[in-house]
Amino acid sequence: MDKYKVTHRLLRQSIKSLVNRQLTSNNPIYRFISALPLGNGGRNPQLYRSFGSLATKVERNPSFSSLNSDDLSYFKGVLGEKNVVQDEDRLETANIDWMHKYKGFSKLLLLPRNTEEVSKILEYCNSRRLAVVPQGGNTGLVGGSVPVFDEVIINVGSMNKIIAFDKVSGILVCEAGCILENLISYLDNQGFVMPLDLGAKGSCQIGGNVSTNAGGLRFVRYGSLHGNVLGLEAVLANGDVLDMLGTLRKDNTGYDLKHLFIGSEGSLGIVTKVSILTPPKLSSVNIAFLACEDYLSCQKLLSEAKRKLGEILSAFEFLDSHAMDLVLNHLEGVRNPLSSAVHNFYLLIETTGSDESYDKEKLEAFLLHSMESGLISDGVLAQDINQASSFWRIREGVPEALMRAGPVYKYDLSLPVEKMYSLVEEMRARLGQSANVVGYGHLGDGNLHLNVSAPRYDDTILAQIEPYVYEWTSKHRGSISAEHGLGLMKANEIFYSKSHGTVSIFTFENIRNAYFLAYVWITWGFFK
Amino acid sequence: MDKYKVTHRLLRQSIKSLVNRQLTSNNPIYRFISALPLGNGGRNPQLYRSFGSLATKVERNPSFSSLNSDDLSYFKGVLGEKNVVQDEDRLETANIDWMHKYKGFSKLLLLPRNTEEVSKILEYCNSRRLAVVPQGGNTGLVGGSVPVFDEVIINVGSMNKIIAFDKVSGILVCEAGCILENLISYLDNQGFVMPLDLGAKGSCQIGGNVSTNAGGLRFVRYGSLHGNVLGLEAVLANGDVLDMLGTLRKDNTGYDLKHLFIGSEGSLGIVTKVSILTPPKLSSVNIAFLACEDYLSCQKLLSEAKRKLGEILSAFEFLDSHAMDLVLNHLEGVRNPLSSAVHNFYLLIETTGSDESYDKEKLEAFLLHSMESGLISDGVLAQDINQASSFWRIREGVPEALMRAGPVYKYDLSLPVEKMYSLVEEMRARLGQSANVVGYGHLGDGNLHLNVSAPRYDDTILAQIEPYVYEWTSKHRGSISAEHGLGLMKANEIFYSKSHGTVSIFTFENIRNAYFLAYVWITWGFFK
Repeated sequence: MDKYKVTHRLLRQSIKSLVNRQLTSNNPIYRFISALPLGNGGRNPQLYRSFGSLATKVERNPSFSSLNSDDLSYFKGVLGEKNVVQDEDRLETANIDWMHKYKGFSKLLLLPRNTEEVSKILEYCNSRRLAVVPQGGNTGLVGGSVPVFDEVIINVGSMNKIIAFDKVSGILVCEAGCILENLISYLDNQGFVMPLDLGAKGSCQIGGNVSTNAGGLRFVRYGSLHGNVLGLEAVLANGDVLDMLGTLRKDNTGYDLKHLFIGSEGSLGIVTKVSILTPPKLSSVNIAFLACEDYLSCQKLLSEAKRKLGEILSAFEFLDSHAMDLVLNHLEGVRNPLSSAVHNFYLLIETTGSDESYDKEKLEAFLLHSMESGLISDGVLAQDINQASSFWRIREGVPEALMRAGPVYKYDLSLPVEKMYSLVEEMRARLGQSANVVGYGHLGDGNLHLNVSAPRYDDTILAQIEPYVYEWTSKHRGSISAEHGLGLMKANEIFYSKSHGTVSIFTFENIRNAYFLAYVWITWGFFK
Repeated sequence: MDKYKVTHRLLRQSIKSLVNRQLTSNNPIYRFISALPLGNGGRNPQLYRSFGSLATKVERNPSFSSLNSDDLSYFKGVLGEKNVVQDEDRLETANIDWMHKYKGFSKLLLLPRNTEEVSKILEYCNSRRLAVVPQGGNTGLVGGSVPVFDEVIINVGSMNKIIAFDKVSGILVCEAGCILENLISYLDNQGFVMPLDLGAKGSCQIGGNVSTNAGGLRFVRYGSLHGNVLGLEAVLANGDVLDMLGTLRKDNTGYDLKHLFIGSEGSLGIVTKVSILTPPKLSSVNIAFLACEDYLSCQKLLSEAKRKLGEILSAFEFLDSHAMDLVLNHLEGVRNPLSSAVHNFYLLIETTGSDESYDKEKLEAFLLHSMESGLISDGVLAQDINQASSFWRIREGVPEALMRAGPVYKYDLSLPVEKMYSLVEEMRARLGQSANVVGYGHLGDGNLHLNVSAPRYDDTILAQIEPYVYEWTSKHRGSISAEHGLGLMKANEIFYSKSHGTVSIFTFENIRNAYFLAYVWITWGFFK
């Protein structure tokens, strides 16, 4: 667990310093944000769905009201003075996303402390036609967690209590504002494991994780939140509280509505409580860092690992040589654990089981066999927790290294494993010397993080990438968003991954009230 | 795998002979069915939701049409003569459920061969206001798979092709009519495992499994279908085909609508294709049959097993001494593998892993420790496949033994593990000598099968059971249907497990068309 904590702490600190740098420099990301028509009272600002002049313009829906002093009085009456935030510095943070790519113009941040308060706020906003945006840890990558215009920001971070934990069943019930890392630590102390883990764990909240159906690093072992979340409580736009907070592994009594909320990105309501099934902690963790010379070998190794490591396989991550170069060049104290020459692909394989010596023996036998059969050209097994952390630091450090390298176009794609890397190669051929195309991600889940690192945000580069990358993904029946969600960035691109018939069903009249969460109307294009 | 096949074949044969017996004798189950107003052309028959005069009356919705000769001509034109079944014998089978408790009066069974045909049929029925009921293997236990009145039966059993299987990802795509056992065998030959297995595998179809969110014997290891089904195709009542047949482990582009169809019991549409993630087959299976003297020990053993057997635990089933007595008395060739005296509880623990000697050693150490600490009073480890099959035969034979013993009131409940057996004891105290109360089920999932075996269907006994059992379950935040579904039996009882707020959302106008599947209107009470 410690490896994650350290990694994350480093990551957050570096990002903070990056953010500061951007805000005071001529950094192109910041220039993009400052070029927007700021501070016109939110009446009719314009924002773009992506970067450069090719982007689609988004306009504020004029049917929404603007805040007035009566609204503020009402909110103060419900939440108390200090939970109605108008302070400019705090609003600045809440208006800008983690990557500093999206910026809203909200004048109000509300911090409810319980479900009843969330309900009162939403009921009021609904009746007053005030747009709102739910916010968790604000670690999203697609502009889904910040306002687009002047929406009221509702952050449930104060609702951070663990409500119950049953040591027999391993079922945890908690409030939506619990920070993921705190849940991981709490469960660790109880002898259990959170089935979800991701780089942003130190900031992201479980309510946000559930609302965005976060994937992350343990997916290959424990699967999706659709399998692990047993229940949730959510507040609809009109203030109705929907109690689906079951704590049962099985319940076949009617439609399982909670699944609609998992991954709905706050568009159907605000998640306020979650119950989740957690497996018992297993004592033995082993990590190997390997090199492959071609992508076919990576695929074969994945098949072999699933079969030979079977029930103990808990991570199968990959990065290409471009990603490795970035990490080695931009992150301090990181070195390549494989001493020999440069390799084309690097893999991180983790096993988690209940018997240290047996698991290690099994992994060693697997590696030896893979070496003999020529699938891997080099490899090393972590000898202690420090070495294990340093392996994870390489994989988890890729996004940070990319941010340090400059402007980056980020794509989070699900593709059939055998097709996945062809896209990286095609993009590399298309872009030539104009940009550095980097591929890494969760190979075990068929989830590619395709990143294009460029000297600047540039229309010519963007036109080379989009819509090509979406069309390519669609042609291979992939998903244009594997785990990041649609947010503002990809709302208009949904048809690349979902049929028109399916999207036409998305407007559930029964859940979505007349003047529903602004997020639905503004951020997700199909609700305009 | 073989053990399952054998067990199932036996089970199906015995049931067949039972059914024949019922149809020609004075058996109380058959008497109940024959007492219904049969054969009045379906105009206004009455049926009851449960057994005895305390049951709620259900009336045919007069807004539905009745079949005419033009309808038959249309169906023959689309499907061909032989797939439009009016033969009385074949209709008889399709009208009666597996347990011979529910009987409809349909005059027509349609056998579409592809999605387009399903679409044409539904579009026509919708426009003509003809009620329909989707049917798979007709193995349900709650009266959900047979008509209530004169609905047109649509059985997709002819759609039984495997469309694709990807050996790298383990993703299977198939038509809805594939029989579960055939999929299990197919995957076994490919070196993979179906994450779903249940007693009715020889007849049930994957489309029905998905539509009812079947649980079964591998749930404790592989979890719910919500975690394993990656995509599906469904036809809505108006004939619209909804393509959600994704084959990706991750896809966060909008609401994941397929989850609404999983467990919706055919009420939102007919599932026509399914894609499902299958794990690689592991070579080593070990099975132990144990005895505990009290329920607290069973619970403690479950906690211990989750921790000590960890990643290899694949089943944790229990039966009480009453269930064991029934099996020993009513099933031929079954004997208690534990030679010593009668015990209060019996447990079947299965492990599945990739290393025969290691797994066995681990299970043996676990059993030795459990014996020393007094949690188990006796136990035996299967020495070969025959012995393993004989252990499973005991657990899987309980429903058959109950059927042979006479009339039985069946309840399928999810409850917190620690409360589960208290209900059995309370029911036993309430019913005294008038009935035999039997408890068994999937302890590892908190899923109790509470069965009351009685000399006859009797109002006095029913009044002692219902609504008490539902109220008790609701009070402990359990579910009145863990894995069987609502069907006709429990449609009116949904509020014991779901809040009014949640149920009020169930009428998705966008999916459910004006004259939707009759099943919705008739079988599920909340749509009346």
